[in-house]
Amino acid sequence: MNKEQLLNILQGVQNGDISPDNALEKIKLAPYEDIGFANIDTSRSLRHGVGEVIYGEGKSAEQIRAIAQKLIDNGEKTVLITRIDESKAEYVNRTITLEYDNESRTAVAGKIPEPNGKGKIVVCCAGTSDLYCAKEALITAKAFGNEVVEMYDVGVAGIHRLLDKAELLSNAKAVIAIAGMEGALASVVGGLASCPVIAVPTSVGYGASFGGVSALLAMLNSCASNVSVVNIDNGFGAAYIASMINHQE
Amino acid sequence: MNKEQLLNILQGVQNGDISPDNALEKIKLAPYEDIGFANIDTSRSLRHGVGEVIYGEGKSAEQIRAIAQKLIDNGEKTVLITRIDESKAEYVNRTITLEYDNESRTAVAGKIPEPNGKGKIVVCCAGTSDLYCAKEALITAKAFGNEVVEMYDVGVAGIHRLLDKAELLSNAKAVIAIAGMEGALASVVGGLASCPVIAVPTSVGYGASFGGVSALLAMLNSCASNVSVVNIDNGFGAAYIASMINHQE
Amino acid sequence: MNKEQLLNILQGVQNGDISPDNALEKIKLAPYEDIGFANIDTSRSLRHGVGEVIYGEGKSAEQIRAIAQKLIDNGEKTVLITRIDESKAEYVNRTITLEYDNESRTAVAGKIPEPNGKGKIVVCCAGTSDLYCAKEALITAKAFGNEVVEMYDVGVAGIHRLLDKAELLSNAKAVIAIAGMEGALASVVGGLASCPVIAVPTSVGYGASFGGVSALLAMLNSCASNVSVVNIDNGFGAAYIASMINHQE
Amino acid sequence: MNKEQLLNILQGVQNGDISPDNALEKIKLAPYEDIGFANIDTSRSLRHGVGEVIYGEGKSAEQIRAIAQKLIDNGEKTVLITRIDESKAEYVNRTITLEYDNESRTAVAGKIPEPNGKGKIVVCCAGTSDLYCAKEALITAKAFGNEVVEMYDVGVAGIHRLLDKAELLSNAKAVIAIAGMEGALASVVGGLASCPVIAVPTSVGYGASFGGVSALLAMLNSCASNVSVVNIDNGFGAAYIASMINHQE
Amino acid sequence: MNKEQLLNILQGVQNGDISPDNALEKIKLAPYEDIGFANIDTSRSLRHGVGEVIYGEGKSAEQIRAIAQKLIDNGEKTVLITRIDESKAEYVNRTITLEYDNESRTAVAGKIPEPNGKGKIVVCCAGTSDLYCAKEALITAKAFGNEVVEMYDVGVAGIHRLLDKAELLSNAKAVIAIAGMEGALASVVGGLASCPVIAVPTSVGYGASFGGVSALLAMLNSCASNVSVVNIDNGFGAAYIASMINHQE
Amino acid sequence: MNKEQLLNILQGVQNGDISPDNALEKIKLAPYEDIGFANIDTSRSLRHGVGEVIYGEGKSAEQIRAIAQKLIDNGEKTVLITRIDESKAEYVNRTITLEYDNESRTAVAGKIPEPNGKGKIVVCCAGTSDLYCAKEALITAKAFGNEVVEMYDVGVAGIHRLLDKAELLSNAKAVIAIAGMEGALASVVGGLASCPVIAVPTSVGYGASFGGVSALLAMLNSCASNVSVVNIDNGFGAAYIASMINHQE
Amino acid sequence: MNKEQLLNILQGVQNGDISPDNALEKIKLAPYEDIGFANIDTSRSLRHGVGEVIYGEGKSAEQIRAIAQKLIDNGEKTVLITRIDESKAEYVNRTITLEYDNESRTAVAGKIPEPNGKGKIVVCCAGTSDLYCAKEALITAKAFGNEVVEMYDVGVAGIHRLLDKAELLSNAKAVIAIAGMEGALASVVGGLASCPVIAVPTSVGYGASFGGVSALLAMLNSCASNVSVVNIDNGFGAAYIASMINHQE
Amino acid sequence: MNKEQLLNILQGVQNGDISPDNALEKIKLAPYEDIGFANIDTSRSLRHGVGEVIYGEGKSAEQIRAIAQKLIDNGEKTVLITRIDESKAEYVNRTITLEYDNESRTAVAGKIPEPNGKGKIVVCCAGTSDLYCAKEALITAKAFGNEVVEMYDVGVAGIHRLLDKAELLSNAKAVIAIAGMEGALASVVGGLASCPVIAVPTSVGYGASFGGVSALLAMLNSCASNVSVVNIDNGFGAAYIASMINHQE
Repeated sequence: MNKEQLLNILQGVQNGDISPDNALEKIKLAPYEDIGFANIDTSRSLRHGVGEVIYGEGKSAEQIRAIAQKLIDNGEKTVLITRIDESKAEYVNRTITLEYDNESRTAVAGKIPEPNGKGKIVVCCAGTSDLYCAKEALITAKAFGNEVVEMYDVGVAGIHRLLDKAELLSNAKAVIAIAGMEGALASVVGGLASCPVIAVPTSVGYGASFGGVSALLAMLNSCASNVSVVNIDNGFGAAYIASMINHQE
Repeated sequence: MNKEQLLNILQGVQNGDISPDNALEKIKLAPYEDIGFANIDTSRSLRHGVGEVIYGEGKSAEQIRAIAQKLIDNGEKTVLITRIDESKAEYVNRTITLEYDNESRTAVAGKIPEPNGKGKIVVCCAGTSDLYCAKEALITAKAFGNEVVEMYDVGVAGIHRLLDKAELLSNAKAVIAIAGMEGALASVVGGLASCPVIAVPTSVGYGASFGGVSALLAMLNSCASNVSVVNIDNGFGAAYIASMINHQE
Repeated sequence: MNKEQLLNILQGVQNGDISPDNALEKIKLAPYEDIGFANIDTSRSLRHGVGEVIYGEGKSAEQIRAIAQKLIDNGEKTVLITRIDESKAEYVNRTITLEYDNESRTAVAGKIPEPNGKGKIVVCCAGTSDLYCAKEALITAKAFGNEVVEMYDVGVAGIHRLLDKAELLSNAKAVIAIAGMEGALASVVGGLASCPVIAVPTSVGYGASFGGVSALLAMLNSCASNVSVVNIDNGFGAAYIASMINHQE
Repeated sequence: MNKEQLLNILQGVQNGDISPDNALEKIKLAPYEDIGFANIDTSRSLRHGVGEVIYGEGKSAEQIRAIAQKLIDNGEKTVLITRIDESKAEYVNRTITLEYDNESRTAVAGKIPEPNGKGKIVVCCAGTSDLYCAKEALITAKAFGNEVVEMYDVGVAGIHRLLDKAELLSNAKAVIAIAGMEGALASVVGGLASCPVIAVPTSVGYGASFGGVSALLAMLNSCASNVSVVNIDNGFGAAYIASMINHQE
Repeated sequence: MNKEQLLNILQGVQNGDISPDNALEKIKLAPYEDIGFANIDTSRSLRHGVGEVIYGEGKSAEQIRAIAQKLIDNGEKTVLITRIDESKAEYVNRTITLEYDNESRTAVAGKIPEPNGKGKIVVCCAGTSDLYCAKEALITAKAFGNEVVEMYDVGVAGIHRLLDKAELLSNAKAVIAIAGMEGALASVVGGLASCPVIAVPTSVGYGASFGGVSALLAMLNSCASNVSVVNIDNGFGAAYIASMINHQE
Repeated sequence: MNKEQLLNILQGVQNGDISPDNALEKIKLAPYEDIGFANIDTSRSLRHGVGEVIYGEGKSAEQIRAIAQKLIDNGEKTVLITRIDESKAEYVNRTITLEYDNESRTAVAGKIPEPNGKGKIVVCCAGTSDLYCAKEALITAKAFGNEVVEMYDVGVAGIHRLLDKAELLSNAKAVIAIAGMEGALASVVGGLASCPVIAVPTSVGYGASFGGVSALLAMLNSCASNVSVVNIDNGFGAAYIASMINHQE
Repeated sequence: MNKEQLLNILQGVQNGDISPDNALEKIKLAPYEDIGFANIDTSRSLRHGVGEVIYGEGKSAEQIRAIAQKLIDNGEKTVLITRIDESKAEYVNRTITLEYDNESRTAVAGKIPEPNGKGKIVVCCAGTSDLYCAKEALITAKAFGNEVVEMYDVGVAGIHRLLDKAELLSNAKAVIAIAGMEGALASVVGGLASCPVIAVPTSVGYGASFGGVSALLAMLNSCASNVSVVNIDNGFGAAYIASMINHQE
Repeated sequence: MNKEQLLNILQGVQNGDISPDNALEKIKLAPYEDIGFANIDTSRSLRHGVGEVIYGEGKSAEQIRAIAQKLIDNGEKTVLITRIDESKAEYVNRTITLEYDNESRTAVAGKIPEPNGKGKIVVCCAGTSDLYCAKEALITAKAFGNEVVEMYDVGVAGIHRLLDKAELLSNAKAVIAIAGMEGALASVVGGLASCPVIAVPTSVGYGASFGGVSALLAMLNSCASNVSVVNIDNGFGAAYIASMINHQE
């Protein structure tokens, strides 16, 4: 809210057009709901174009269920829960029906919306061991209303596997490139795609992979200019951004 | 190119509709021109929607001029040169007129195009010492046909400076958030914006800033889901991606 | 003890005003008690204004109980035990009544004193997963006689949650800012508060958070001048310092 | 500003007691002045109890002079400039009289105020090569109205040098402990002092000192509970916090 | 495939000598087989001279068995499986007979071929705790048709143990030098051997060995010019390369 | 063995004074015994003045017993086994009587020799949680024939605990200073002692202690010139060196 | 030299067939020449199949000339000098004719031998800024008698530039893959080549490239099994190994 | 000073045997002299058996001269100055005659004492580029009264150069092993020596040597038990300790 808008509201109060209580609501920058252990941001869908997401890590099953219920009560049609263990998902599932994906530890309450973006998002990953992260990106992208093309086990040491799919890459609205170890996939995909590539390093590898740091560094140093990077294993964040790009008018 | 397309071309050759030489051109994935010390990618503007950019670091003035001339001869209307020293720019300027920005060490040959994107890109930075990077992003974004809103010295320790401009952030098509030291700007901006935020850590700071590593790590760990990150001081890359987002249909 | 004081004591001995044994006691810089496996500092409350605290990590239940009993026998009214597992707490509880906090693994023997500081300490944290650390700070601050304002889940990606509480921050005598991931809370709080801010990075996060290192670095690089930092997860230390500030005359 | 206060102002507008323009001023969280290349925070002295400080690094002599002049015009009696090269100081000195300290590269315009804190601040450092940082802390503390006790070359390998001054430490309101190399001074001083110790690692040392990182880590791991840490070489920040503690009522 | 070859094929299609379908097969750079969760590279033995290897880490017993079966069906005589747990090996063993090595967690299906290289490969390691890695190298080298000389517990602190075997080193076609801790073996072996030395750092050690990083760094800095390095614990990779050298004509 | 000695032996062979077989034995630099999985260095006690020590980590109970038995058979009176789990110690104990220390996981077969060094070794550590390492040093030093002074819980934040024992330090032949966290003990002890101080960083601590790295760095940067450092938790190595110093003539 | 050989020599001495002096020469493991400031290894060409190389870094022009002259006097036909500044090369050139390469700071005295290896070595690099390292590899390989194929500016973001040369890669005896930034070239080349690939990370890049560390880590984590790695910028070492492979019988 | 001694002094005061002023002197733990910018420890030669040493780094020529003069006035026969630039040495030399070593930047005032230790100290280094550090150790050892054996350019890649000198190593009282790059020298020397080995990593190397960190880590992980380590390039410290060992009775 800028000064002019604020002045307008205040003049409305002076003129009697707006009541002080009404103005209070308008002036408060963004509403949220305090449920004791958390401040739920019930207007994020307004600001970011997507509903609230529950990051399950470090939350108890009871807390997850409480937040999910509050969101559903507020009218959310799709509630995405990431990083939730199977046992917690089972607990929540007793009162709120969840679709649970074991590989990525992701759950969805409500229904996956029809794709309503401008085009397709490609989710590609280098090896089968990166699938846990690719699935998180896949489910997130779908939960946010995107059509997704899956492209797995296309690591660069067998470059022809990727080249066979070059056209899919060049037609995407956004590409999510997921890789551990040397993380080279991002650069090659960056060169083949005509859209932003969001690179996700994974913690896959051993020894000098340092839990994803090697892949992270490689991606940050990509010689392809259309590559940006999110945190290690952050398939959710990559899909969040890809969905924004795919939905922007 | 997928198998079907390839088969089509081959059948065209079989039928005599396409000559082998013609097919050869079609099958070759992407053309480039070899000028001895470099392979110039003359078709990138086709693939990525922007012209070739010359990264000046580690190239001689002669090399930069030769590549720039080749691109101009190929019909490029705007040639962007990043990380070029003033003395090299002066050399190139003798035969190719350049507009040179001292702060960001960026030069442009030809004319800056009229903005032709969907909306505005915000370039914001935390302190006056980040300006060198902000200017690189600014000039890049303009050279690629974007309208840019500048927002400087809006570091989070004086949060009201940023809040006064919250509306500009929430209306942008893409935001470039540039900060050194603790890099907190990205997260706060991420919460205020409704579009992808590309965060650029800068090498500004001392001691435990480790030449931008602290800011880089902070940005990678951003609790705002719409933030992705590029390399330290990479204002060019951030603007490249922001422009892609702002131009995507 | 400076030279003058020492000379005074020695002249007292010369004059016969002080016996050698008596002088010995005075000259010994600070008394402590050796109970075999530990040297208990029974005069710290004199020096630092707070009682002895037992750091439970790496101590057996028997050792903790023995030290606690010794302190109680020496007249301590409140004994704080940090980093103590539930099972060890149960063991100690058989002979010394403890109030145990499960989340922060903190126990208190004796009674929490009435607040006797100059004002209020604010304990704020960025997310619900930082609560374990906030609770350690909270209980420590209370055990040392401070009135505490709690402010949880006020991370900077939803900046309005923090701004609504700006006045509480500007009225505090000391603020403890606790955050993992990008650690940006410290800088924003630093700008809003008018007192020293002790920043505590937490080990909350994944991937490039490196167990709290990213938050630690961000806090050390804070652009707010009133921020100092303690070790990762060290809620106790932050409260110790905040209490000193709140009690200093 | 909390909701109640806001409601009061708004009701004042409704009642005609407060004009909209007047209310606008009240509602704006904190004023600052935009002078083109910087947003000067002219109300910080209100919030933090100290005047604006100019961080000279990365600013031109012209910029420093312009900001300093603006602050003086706004009524600041003492303007502190840190990290300013001698040549820049000479430039500013042509129109604004500066007292310049060569060792710490610090300058003061106006007059050092009379000490008006509650007690004394001790600035101690381990070796003569840490003096550049100790001087920055010293001048800052004095510019903010503090009485300072200097204690140099008291490194822990000759512990008696420090013990002779133990009483000064135990009587201070705040201690600034400055050390490079192994940074052990902070822990020993922490044990001898009865007040908060702000530790400043310096970049002094060679080899595995890693430009101050070893000292920084040692200080963060201090076994003395009253030690908090600021960035490497940040004598200014330490004095800023020490002054806050020494002035708090 | 270069342009000329491609042109030849296309002219063959034009001439009717080659059918489009036939040409399609030829143009596809390298064949692989998609079995859902993986793209199996069935032509690698053609390109690299060795059969497909299954990296067991992060694959389920079912996946491993499926891939192994597919390879056997394709005619592979020896299928090597690395990093496979005993329980998974037992599962696979129910339908495909495996020879399992417990120490290195390596399994072989089919028969070890007769040595068919030019000479011998030496596998040496510094201590008995490096044996897990040496065995991985040993079995890999044998599975690829190499005669191997084993040389264990020849760490440099007892240099005579190594010197007694200097002649074996100077006669080898390739040496694999495996060591954890300070990794000095590689340099000493490098000086004694007359062939390429592939150094493998192991994660053996504690404290400042950092899981093999110290050994890795030492090996990368080897003053012996014939030493190159693979990832920590990568006995397989070292043997792969050694075998290539031993088989090259 | 230098050239002259070698020539002497060879001339002895020429003269018939020494048989070729005899010479062979003399020329072999140092004898060891190969028992399959290990090369036992049976002459180290000759070279280093102490018997063979078995590093238990990564060795099976069977292997440890076999090596111990071999050493006893060779006449070793005291066999030290470090880093051996209780269960393995029990296994060995069935046939070889062991004295086992639970805290340091150290075992001794045979009898501890009478002290036969020049003076005393001091083993001091900063906190009770460093005792596991201090005990390893203590038992090692005793097993090598040294009189040891124990000095525990003398961390520098309570400097008087250490100063009370300054005389013991100044009379020692070698001091082993053990500390985790900030590792400051080494520097203070270095200043008080008149002999070499071997510093042992421990992995004790949390957060930014990084498993002993902070203490390690502090010790390497010690401003006391008589301090050298061994690996994290390497109490054995420190005692090995201290014993060498205490026994050197 | 093994025991049998030694026994043979000794029996020869006993029999009078070999004089003691003669035997001394035979027993000395490897000869070298001491010229005061250096021990010159005059028999390395025997052991490693290549002549002595002078590493110029940190040697004075006088020292380099003295060593070079000694080698030439010993009959070396080609003397390679790496990392030698132009001014030093000019000094040496006064008495020993050098061919100097400015880009890689490499000099050759004597004549480049005719290629006498089994096949070709490919030297490829990702960008024009990696040329300094590629030239070091090129000249080294030629000085050791290899035919070299150069392949520059074939970075993976424009993958078709590399694919056009796939056949050259698959026919090489050894490939040297040189890249800075994300170092992805090694993995892609590894997949296309049928021989060992020696990867050389370069210090090219900025920000998070950390002077070549990112490329180094990527290469160590390569998913292509035929890739091993040498130190950052070590073009010489890579060519040394490649030459060994290309010459091995 | 322990309690008994203190009691004795105090009883002496009571008895009139000792005056209070006299007692004061006795009680003060260790004397030092304050010359303004430094506290000179004039009794260290008493405690450590060697004279005061001036660490020149970061001290002005004036400061160095003042301290040196004070020490000479106090009766020091040999004053060692380390890390002093040639220009500063020239300044000091005007009034105090210095013997200056250019390579190690070390100066000695007064005369080198006759060797008075128990035996010899070996100073060995791996390459000619480590000589700067070896010279610092050499001069320090001589200035402290030791006979020194020099052993240069004995790196482990040509192991025979070191083995030829094995006897010198096995007869030394202390060995200083100096090496950069992979630092393997320390372990090999540790195995050949029968005395403590003080390892000094040097900053020699490039790329992944990280200014001596690789060598440092290798040395800390040495498999030879008699190796302890000092800071990178700290030849002085190593010689200080070696001298203590060589002089201890």
